[in-house]
Amino acid sequence: MMMRLSPPASGRFFQATSFDAHFGGGEANVSVSLAHLGISSAHVTRFPDNELGYAAGAFLKKHGVDTRFVQYGGPRLGLYFFENGSAMRPGKVVYDRAGSAFDCLNPDDFNWEKILEGVRWFHWTGITPAISAAAAEACRQALSAANKLGIYVSADVNFRKNLWRYGASASEVMEPLVAQCDLIVCGPPEATECLNITPPVNDAHPFIFMAEQLMKKFPKLKKIIATRRDSVSANHNRLTGLHYDESGYMESATIEITPIVDRIGGGDAFMAGYIYAMLKNMPIRQALEFATAASALKHTFPGDVNLATAEEIEALMNGNNTGRLIR
Amino acid sequence: MMMRLSPPASGRFFQATSFDAHFGGGEANVSVSLAHLGISSAHVTRFPDNELGYAAGAFLKKHGVDTRFVQYGGPRLGLYFFENGSAMRPGKVVYDRAGSAFDCLNPDDFNWEKILEGVRWFHWTGITPAISAAAAEACRQALSAANKLGIYVSADVNFRKNLWRYGASASEVMEPLVAQCDLIVCGPPEATECLNITPPVNDAHPFIFMAEQLMKKFPKLKKIIATRRDSVSANHNRLTGLHYDESGYMESATIEITPIVDRIGGGDAFMAGYIYAMLKNMPIRQALEFATAASALKHTFPGDVNLATAEEIEALMNGNNTGRLIR
Amino acid sequence: MMMRLSPPASGRFFQATSFDAHFGGGEANVSVSLAHLGISSAHVTRFPDNELGYAAGAFLKKHGVDTRFVQYGGPRLGLYFFENGSAMRPGKVVYDRAGSAFDCLNPDDFNWEKILEGVRWFHWTGITPAISAAAAEACRQALSAANKLGIYVSADVNFRKNLWRYGASASEVMEPLVAQCDLIVCGPPEATECLNITPPVNDAHPFIFMAEQLMKKFPKLKKIIATRRDSVSANHNRLTGLHYDESGYMESATIEITPIVDRIGGGDAFMAGYIYAMLKNMPIRQALEFATAASALKHTFPGDVNLATAEEIEALMNGNNTGRLIR
Amino acid sequence: MMMRLSPPASGRFFQATSFDAHFGGGEANVSVSLAHLGISSAHVTRFPDNELGYAAGAFLKKHGVDTRFVQYGGPRLGLYFFENGSAMRPGKVVYDRAGSAFDCLNPDDFNWEKILEGVRWFHWTGITPAISAAAAEACRQALSAANKLGIYVSADVNFRKNLWRYGASASEVMEPLVAQCDLIVCGPPEATECLNITPPVNDAHPFIFMAEQLMKKFPKLKKIIATRRDSVSANHNRLTGLHYDESGYMESATIEITPIVDRIGGGDAFMAGYIYAMLKNMPIRQALEFATAASALKHTFPGDVNLATAEEIEALMNGNNTGRLIR
Amino acid sequence: MMMRLSPPASGRFFQATSFDAHFGGGEANVSVSLAHLGISSAHVTRFPDNELGYAAGAFLKKHGVDTRFVQYGGPRLGLYFFENGSAMRPGKVVYDRAGSAFDCLNPDDFNWEKILEGVRWFHWTGITPAISAAAAEACRQALSAANKLGIYVSADVNFRKNLWRYGASASEVMEPLVAQCDLIVCGPPEATECLNITPPVNDAHPFIFMAEQLMKKFPKLKKIIATRRDSVSANHNRLTGLHYDESGYMESATIEITPIVDRIGGGDAFMAGYIYAMLKNMPIRQALEFATAASALKHTFPGDVNLATAEEIEALMNGNNTGRLIR
Amino acid sequence: MMMRLSPPASGRFFQATSFDAHFGGGEANVSVSLAHLGISSAHVTRFPDNELGYAAGAFLKKHGVDTRFVQYGGPRLGLYFFENGSAMRPGKVVYDRAGSAFDCLNPDDFNWEKILEGVRWFHWTGITPAISAAAAEACRQALSAANKLGIYVSADVNFRKNLWRYGASASEVMEPLVAQCDLIVCGPPEATECLNITPPVNDAHPFIFMAEQLMKKFPKLKKIIATRRDSVSANHNRLTGLHYDESGYMESATIEITPIVDRIGGGDAFMAGYIYAMLKNMPIRQALEFATAASALKHTFPGDVNLATAEEIEALMNGNNTGRLIR
Repeated sequence: MMMRLSPPASGRFFQATSFDAHFGGGEANVSVSLAHLGISSAHVTRFPDNELGYAAGAFLKKHGVDTRFVQYGGPRLGLYFFENGSAMRPGKVVYDRAGSAFDCLNPDDFNWEKILEGVRWFHWTGITPAISAAAAEACRQALSAANKLGIYVSADVNFRKNLWRYGASASEVMEPLVAQCDLIVCGPPEATECLNITPPVNDAHPFIFMAEQLMKKFPKLKKIIATRRDSVSANHNRLTGLHYDESGYMESATIEITPIVDRIGGGDAFMAGYIYAMLKNMPIRQALEFATAASALKHTFPGDVNLATAEEIEALMNGNNTGRLIR
Repeated sequence: MMMRLSPPASGRFFQATSFDAHFGGGEANVSVSLAHLGISSAHVTRFPDNELGYAAGAFLKKHGVDTRFVQYGGPRLGLYFFENGSAMRPGKVVYDRAGSAFDCLNPDDFNWEKILEGVRWFHWTGITPAISAAAAEACRQALSAANKLGIYVSADVNFRKNLWRYGASASEVMEPLVAQCDLIVCGPPEATECLNITPPVNDAHPFIFMAEQLMKKFPKLKKIIATRRDSVSANHNRLTGLHYDESGYMESATIEITPIVDRIGGGDAFMAGYIYAMLKNMPIRQALEFATAASALKHTFPGDVNLATAEEIEALMNGNNTGRLIR
Repeated sequence: MMMRLSPPASGRFFQATSFDAHFGGGEANVSVSLAHLGISSAHVTRFPDNELGYAAGAFLKKHGVDTRFVQYGGPRLGLYFFENGSAMRPGKVVYDRAGSAFDCLNPDDFNWEKILEGVRWFHWTGITPAISAAAAEACRQALSAANKLGIYVSADVNFRKNLWRYGASASEVMEPLVAQCDLIVCGPPEATECLNITPPVNDAHPFIFMAEQLMKKFPKLKKIIATRRDSVSANHNRLTGLHYDESGYMESATIEITPIVDRIGGGDAFMAGYIYAMLKNMPIRQALEFATAASALKHTFPGDVNLATAEEIEALMNGNNTGRLIR
Repeated sequence: MMMRLSPPASGRFFQATSFDAHFGGGEANVSVSLAHLGISSAHVTRFPDNELGYAAGAFLKKHGVDTRFVQYGGPRLGLYFFENGSAMRPGKVVYDRAGSAFDCLNPDDFNWEKILEGVRWFHWTGITPAISAAAAEACRQALSAANKLGIYVSADVNFRKNLWRYGASASEVMEPLVAQCDLIVCGPPEATECLNITPPVNDAHPFIFMAEQLMKKFPKLKKIIATRRDSVSANHNRLTGLHYDESGYMESATIEITPIVDRIGGGDAFMAGYIYAMLKNMPIRQALEFATAASALKHTFPGDVNLATAEEIEALMNGNNTGRLIR
Repeated sequence: MMMRLSPPASGRFFQATSFDAHFGGGEANVSVSLAHLGISSAHVTRFPDNELGYAAGAFLKKHGVDTRFVQYGGPRLGLYFFENGSAMRPGKVVYDRAGSAFDCLNPDDFNWEKILEGVRWFHWTGITPAISAAAAEACRQALSAANKLGIYVSADVNFRKNLWRYGASASEVMEPLVAQCDLIVCGPPEATECLNITPPVNDAHPFIFMAEQLMKKFPKLKKIIATRRDSVSANHNRLTGLHYDESGYMESATIEITPIVDRIGGGDAFMAGYIYAMLKNMPIRQALEFATAASALKHTFPGDVNLATAEEIEALMNGNNTGRLIR
Repeated sequence: MMMRLSPPASGRFFQATSFDAHFGGGEANVSVSLAHLGISSAHVTRFPDNELGYAAGAFLKKHGVDTRFVQYGGPRLGLYFFENGSAMRPGKVVYDRAGSAFDCLNPDDFNWEKILEGVRWFHWTGITPAISAAAAEACRQALSAANKLGIYVSADVNFRKNLWRYGASASEVMEPLVAQCDLIVCGPPEATECLNITPPVNDAHPFIFMAEQLMKKFPKLKKIIATRRDSVSANHNRLTGLHYDESGYMESATIEITPIVDRIGGGDAFMAGYIYAMLKNMPIRQALEFATAASALKHTFPGDVNLATAEEIEALMNGNNTGRLIR
C-alpha cells in the first residue's frame, strides 16, 4: 500500500501548491472493499515505523481491515503522485516507491501458517513479486502455506513495466506463482508479459485464446476473469466484465461510467466483488455482474478503494443505473 | 428551511472531514428565487433563537427575502446531510429535522391576516403539514386567511414518506388543504399518496388522467403543473414541464442538463418561475417554458436556491442553451 | 496580462467568499505556451510597481518566459472576474482593467530595436491597440521595428467591444497594423469589426470569403488562421482549426472537448501551437493539426495558459484522444 | 464600501493562488456593526450595476443593513488587497479603488432630505470627501440636510494620504464639513493633516491639546473621541479609548488583544459602539468603555465588520476578558 | 460520542459556508487517547444505523479503539456546533444532541458482564446519566457489573446544566453512581451540582475541602483528581493537575499553553493520562504530572481527542517544553 | 532542494487528508532569498527528469533564481514531511530524501569553471557532502574551482545526523572542505560533529572558544557566524546573531519572534542576509543586524524561503518591529 498524492481537481503537478492524500495498493484495495462488503479481511504488509506508516495502518483500520499482521519497520512509505486527466488529456502517475519498507521486508518475518489460520481466501497481485526478490520470496512462501492449508488463492497478474528491476524476469517469477492459484485476473497484455502466452495477431477473441492456453498451462487454475475498459475519454469509460472457466466464456453487461470521479482501483474493486460473490455462493453470471458493478461504482468514489456496500452494488447490478437521488 | 451539510465534491459521508453548508427548504427556495427575479417576497417560518437560527435568517436577508415574519424560538434548526451522487451512483439524503424549531411552532403565534396584508400570492408545500400537527394547523389557518383575502394560492404537494409521523395520514390532512388552492405542483405519485387519486396501471398519460380527476375533485383548482425528470445519470437529467388547465394538457420543450451541479431545489425553482410568469402575465405556453428553463438553470448552481435572473432564464427559454461565454 | 479572479468550482459571484487567482492575457498566454513547448520566448509589457505587479512578473518567470523587458510602474494591475459556466449556463466575464499600468504606458519607454534584436517572431493581439492611444502607439512602433528587422509578425485580431474607448475606431487603428503582418488569427466577426470586410449574408463559406478579401487587401499577409468553436454546452465544445493561405483553404479534424476544465486562452494556445509548428518547419497540414490539438488540450488545464508539452500535443494530434492513464 | 482580497492565512501576495474576499469600508462597517447591535441602520452609497455590485449589496442585506438608498451604476467596485502581517512583519494594503462607481457618483442622484427622513444619527468619514469632488459634494449636501433636519452628526476624520488626488487639499474640504458635526473621531495626526491643528512637539497630552483646540475652532462640536493603539506586534495590540467633551478628558481601561484575528475596521467598531451607547443613553464613562470593548472584539473576527452582539460587548466591558468557553 | 461542526479558523457561525467535522465525546475521547498510548481500549455506545453512524464508528476504529460493542440503531447522531474563541472572545458551543441514538438506547441491549469480561478498568462520565433515564439505567447496570467483576471504576463527574431534562435531578442520580467508583474527576462546581457538597464561601482550598468531604461520603472512593485551568485568554491557558487521596493533597507543575489549538477534550486527556499512568504503575507524583502533561498536549491538536504518544507526554513531563523542532 | 509536504495548519500526520507543498533546501533557500534582495543568483543542482523535477525548477525560476545549471535526470525528487509544532509540542520532520536525483549525481556532469565564471560568491552547506560520495566529490570540485577563480566561499556547516550514511565520517569529509572557505555558519554542536572542535564543558562562551579554535585550524577562514535560538515554545523564539572575526566577538540585538509562521529556513535567511550585506559593503555591525533581521522575518513567511525585501529587513533592523499596518 502506498500513499497517493494528487494535485486538487484537474490541476497539473506544475501548478500544485497542495496535494490530496489517499492510501491504496492492489491487495489493500481488495481488503478494504471486502470489509465494506461485510467480509472480514486482513491485510499483510510492512509499513515504516514512522508517522506516515502509522497513518497508513490507521487508514486500513478505519475501513475495518484487520491489521494484526502488519509489520512496522524499514526505510520509507511507498508513494505515488497522480495527476488527474481530463477529456482527452490522460491522467499521469509518477511512481516514487523504490526503497520502501515493503521492498526491504524480510520474508522470514512472516509466519504464513499462523497468518493464514482459519482463512478462506488468499489474494495477491503481480506487483508484489515485481518489487524485490524479498517480496517475491514472501509471496512464494505465502502461496506455499495457502496451498498446504487448502485455501482458495486468487491473483491479479497486473504487470507494471517500471518495476521488475531486481534482475529476475517477470515470467520466470510469475509462472510458478500463478501455477498455485485457483483464479486469476489477467488480460492478454499481462499474459504476454508475465506468463509467456500471446494470442495470435488478429485473433478475434484474444481473451478466450489466452484463457484456454492458461487453463492448459496451469492445471490448478479454474477461473480467469478480467475487465475490458473502453475509454471514450479520461472522464468517460465503458466497463465490461470477462469470465472464463470450464463452462466457457461469458461477458457481463457493459456499464457506462461518466463522469469518472477516480478510476484508480477499478480492477481491485472488480476482484473484491468477485471474491464476495463467490463467498456468498452467487451463480457465475450473477457473480460476474456483481463484480463488474462493483468495479463501475468504484469509479464514482475519490481515492483508491471501493466504498460501495453490497446493497448499492446489487441495485446497480439490477439495472438501477440512473443515479436518482435517494431521500 | 434547513441547513444542508454536504461532503465536498464527490466524497462520501464516510470520507468527510468537512461539510459544505447551504440553506434551503421548499417554501424558502421559492421565496429566494422570486427575490432574484425581482419579485418582492417574504418567508414565514420559525428558527431557533441561537446562532444557527440567526445565520438562517441572514441567508434569507442576503438573498433579498423579507424576514419580518420569521419567529425565533424553539429547540433546534432542522438539518439534512446530502451526499452528492456521481454517474450511476445516486445522491443520498440523511434527514435530521425531527424536533426542529419549526416542528414545535405555536400556530397562534402567526397572525395570518396581518402577515398576508397586501399580498398577491401565497405558496406552501406538502412538507409543512407533514412535519407536525402544529405545522399543519398553521398551514390551515394561513390558507383560510388567504382565501378570505382573495389571495391566489399555490402548493407543491411534495410527499415525503419519512415525515407524516404525528398520527394523521397524508391524505386526510392534504385533501382539505389542496381544496383551497388555485394551482398545485403534483405528479401521479404525490396524487396517489396524498390525494387518493391513482391513474390506472398502464394508463398512457397518467399525468393527464390525474389532472382531470384532480380538477373534478377540487373545484377551486385551476392549474396542475409538474416537471418530468428523465434521469440518465446522477449528473445528467432531461427536464420537461407539464401543464394542465381548463384548456387541456401542454408540455414544454425538454431541456438537457449535463453536467448537473446541484439538483436540489429544481422543483422549487420551477414553481417560482411559474409564479413569476403569472405575475408578469405571460401567456401560458411562455409561462411553462419560463418555469422549465428556471428549473433547468437551478441545476447549474451549488445550493438549494435558484440564483438565475429573469434575463438569464429568458435567454435559455429562447433557445440560447449553448453555454457560450459572455464577455 | 491581467489577474483573473474566479469563484471556486461552479459558484456564482453572488456566492463567492474567495476567489481563485490566475494570470493571463492574449500575448502572455502565447509566450507561456511557447515556453512550455521549449521555445525561448519573451513578453513585453508593463506591470504596476507593487506586490501584485511583482507576482504577475513571477508568474511569467515560473513558466520560463523571459521578463527582461517588462517595465514596472503606473497605477494598477488589470483584473478580470470570471464566473465559470455550467451546462447551458454561460460563463461570465466582468472586466476590471481600465486604468491599468499597461493602459498608461509611455511608448517611448520601449526601445523596440533592442528588444527585438535576434528575434525570429513577433506576436501581438488586437486587445493592445484597443486599450489606449499609448498602447496602440507602442504597438505601431513595435511593428515598424519588427518589419525593419525582417521579423515574422503575427496578430490575433481579437475584437473586444467593451474596449476601444479612447476615441479611435477599431478599423482605423487595426488596418494599418494588420497591413504589417505575415499571419493573422481572424474570423468573420473580427474582420467585420476591425478590418471592414464582411462576408455577404448567407455566404456558404464566410471564412473563405473573408480570407480571400483579406489577402487582397493586405498584400504582406500570407496566412489567415482561426478556430471554429461549436458549443454544445459550457462544458462541451467541438473545436476545428481553419487555415487559409496561397494554396487555399484547409480544415483540421474536429476535436471533441468534454468536459472542459477551463476554456479561457484556447485561441492563444492555438496561436502558440501554430508558431511552434512553423518554427519547427512542420508541413501546413501537420501545423494546423498541431495548433488545433494544442488549443484543445488547453481546455483541460485550469488557468489561462496552455501547459501542454509538444509530446502531449503530438500524441493527441496522432489520434491518442482516449485519455487513458499513463503509468 | 470595497471588496477586500487577502491571501489566505499568513501568505504573501507573491505566494497567493487564491484570495479570501470580504467587504468593508468606513461608513459601511459602522452600519453593519450597528445592525448587529440591534440598531436599525441604512447605508447610502453607489455600487456598479454588475454582479460584484450586487454581491456588495447582498453583503449589507445579509448583515441586516437597509440598502434602500444604494444606487447601482458606474464603472467598477473599489477593491483593496490586504496581506496579513505576522509578528514583527507589518500587514500591507494595496488600494485599488480609483475609478470606482462611488468615485463617479452624481451628487444630484441623492435626495438627502428624503433619505434622512426620520433618522436620528448621520455618520460619515473623511474617506468620502477625499475620493472625488463629486463625493465631497454629496457629503456636503448630506451634512446640510442633516443639519437642517436636526440630526446628530458624527464623522471619522480618517486621513488617507494616497487619496485627495482631485486637486483640493484635505483641510480646505474637511474644515467646513467638520464644522457641521456634533462628534468626531480624530487623533493628532488627522487633526494636523485635515484640520490645521497641530499639538506642539513634546506636548505631554497631544490629544487633549488637539481636542481643546478643535472645540474652540468648531463650536458645534461636542465630543472628540479616538482610540490609542499600542502595537506590540502585528498580532498583539493594546487598545485604549480616548474621550473629550465639555467635562474634560477621559480614558477607558486598556484592553490587551492577542492574538489579533483581523485588525481592519477596529476604528469603525469603536464608532459604532459609541453611537449605540449614546442611543441607549449610557453614561459617558460606560459609553467609552462599551465603544472600546466593541473595538477590541472586532479584532477577533475575520473581515472588516464587527459581528459582536451588545451582550458580548457588555460582558467584555464588565471584565469578562478571559475567553472561557461558553457551553 | 457526537460529531462536532466548527466554522474554519476563527470564523463565526454567522460567516460559515463550511464546517470542519470532528468526532468526540467524554468517554470516547478517553478510549481514543488510551489507544494512542498503546493501551487496548473499547468504547460502548449506540450510533444511528446510517452513514453518519458508520462514520462515527470508523473514527473510533481508525484510532485503534475496539468497537465490537457499539450498537447501530435509533434516530440520529448527536451533534454539537463549536465556534472557536479568540483572544478575549470566548468560544461557543451550541449543542444539538437531543433525540440522539444514544438518548434512546435500550439498557437491556447491553450485556455488561460479557462486555466487561477480562477488563481492568471501566470509565464513565456524568454526561451519560444526564442524557436520558435509559442512559442512566445503562450506566447503573454497567457499574453494577463492573463492581461485581472487581473492575476499577473511574468517572468524570462533568456537570452540564443544559442536560438533565428527563425529570431526575443530577444529585439523586449521580450520588449512587459515584458511590460505586474508585476514582473521580471532580471540582467544586461539579460537587455542588451533582454530589451535594459545597465548600464554604471563601474557603482557602475549596478543592481540598470538597475532596475530604467526598472521601467521607463515598467510602469506596480512593482518589479525586481534577485540573485547574487559569484562563488568560481563549488562546492562552495555564493548566495544573490536582490530586487528592489518602496521602493528602498534591498539585502538579503548572503548564503554560499558548497558543491553544483546540481546548475541547482537555479533561478527557487528563483522565486517560491518569489511567495510563496507573496501569503502568507510575508513582502518584509522576502519574499526576503525566496526566497533566497529557492534557496540556491535547490542547495542541485539532479535534476532541489526544493524539500524543506516551513518549511525547513523557518528554513534556520531563521539562522538554520548548517546542524545538525534531528532525 | 526538496519538496516539503505538511499537514495543513496544526494537524498531525495522522490526521492529514492533504498536504501543503513547498520547495526548499539549504543552498536553494539562500539563492532564493538573495534573488528577492535583488542580487543575481544561480542554483546548481540535479532534479529528476519528471514533472516533479520541472515543478522544482519552476519554483526557482518564479523566485528569480538562474536555473541554467540545473541538471535533469536520475531517480526521484527528495522529499520531507513536516508537521507543524504548536505551543510546547515540537514540530517534526520525517525525511524521505534517500535515493534522490541529487544523491545520484555524476560529479563529472558539472563544469565548475564554466559555472563559476564571473561569479563573486559561492555558497554550499554541509548537507551536500553528507548525502553521497558523489555529492561530496562535486562539492570538492566546486570548491577547488572557486578557490582557483578567487571567489569568496561560504558554507553552512549544518550537521544532520541521519545523513552521512555512505561510509565516510563527517569530519574527514568536512574538514578539507571547510579549509577552503572564507566564512562559515557554525555553532558548537556542528563544530564538534564535523570539525573535531569541542568547547570544554561549562565554558562560559562556547561559541567564542570554538571560533578561536576554528580560526587557528583553518587559516583561510575569516569569519564565523551563527544564530542563537532561544525557544520559548514552538510558536515563540528569540533570535540573536553571533559573529566572530579577527576583530573579535559581536552579538546582534535579540529579536522576539511570536507567533512564528514557519521556522524552516531561518538559518539560510541569515546566511543570505549576511551575503547581501557584505556584497553591499555594510559595516560588520550593520551586516550582522541585517542578517539577523532577515532571519527573523523569514519566520513570518510560510515555506522554506525568505520573501523579505531589503527595504523590509532594513526597517526591522532599524527598530520598526511593531508590525503596524502599512497602507
